[in-house]
Amino acid sequence: MTVEKINLSDKFGKLPAGDYAVRLVAKMNNYDFKIVKFKGDFIWHSHPETDETFIIMEGTLVMNFRDRKVEVRAGEMIVIPKGVEHKPSSKNGYKALLIEPEGVSNTGNVQSEMTIEKVEWV
Amino acid sequence: MTVEKINLSDKFGKLPAGDYAVRLVAKMNNYDFKIVKFKGDFIWHSHPETDETFIIMEGTLVMNFRDRKVEVRAGEMIVIPKGVEHKPSSKNGYKALLIEPEGVSNTGNVQSEMTIEKVEWV
Repeated sequence: MTVEKINLSDKFGKLPAGDYAVRLVAKMNNYDFKIVKFKGDFIWHSHPETDETFIIMEGTLVMNFRDRKVEVRAGEMIVIPKGVEHKPSSKNGYKALLIEPEGVSNTGNVQSEMTIEKVEWV
Repeated sequence: MTVEKINLSDKFGKLPAGDYAVRLVAKMNNYDFKIVKFKGDFIWHSHPETDETFIIMEGTLVMNFRDRKVEVRAGEMIVIPKGVEHKPSSKNGYKALLIEPEGVSNTGNVQSEMTIEKVEWV
């Protein structure tokens, strides 16, 4: 088996234009590593079955919770506990590495026009 | 539940002096996020039960495999598949975020003077 490294800047450079994109870059056991870029206001949702990790690579993610918000900047990470409602926002956009089990919906318990049915590799 | 972000630079700044240190910084489900700094030659080992992910934050990790080696630099990551023998090395040192299930030994299938029995939080 040939093990290859992954260059995250290269991968981000291959994302399509626009304010929101998510692509798979690696797998570890049954977990996905996805790169995401996002600008704007996402929707309120939770993941009833799993925690979810964001590692911020560029920009600032404002993670809104029902009782407060946390600004997560490049070089910082946050683990959203399972079942906790959250709404990612970013005025100027952020890029992040997202880690969660395979098959987790980007909009969690909510079906929305933002729901992505299948995340592609990049 | 109050969800807190984690600043990785701050965490690295709290590592003890020396060429090798590993500390826990976060948990996601039953997975550990650990920060590691390492300089020198580690030992050959494998993890028979799990993949293991290194995200390099600073410096260069030379990941030796039996048939080749891969240089992994800041902004790059590598997933070591379960059961694959590897030996991390670094002439000038590297800092990384390490992701793997709880309870995985740093020296895998090998018991060594480098084996850490219990990883502490930082």
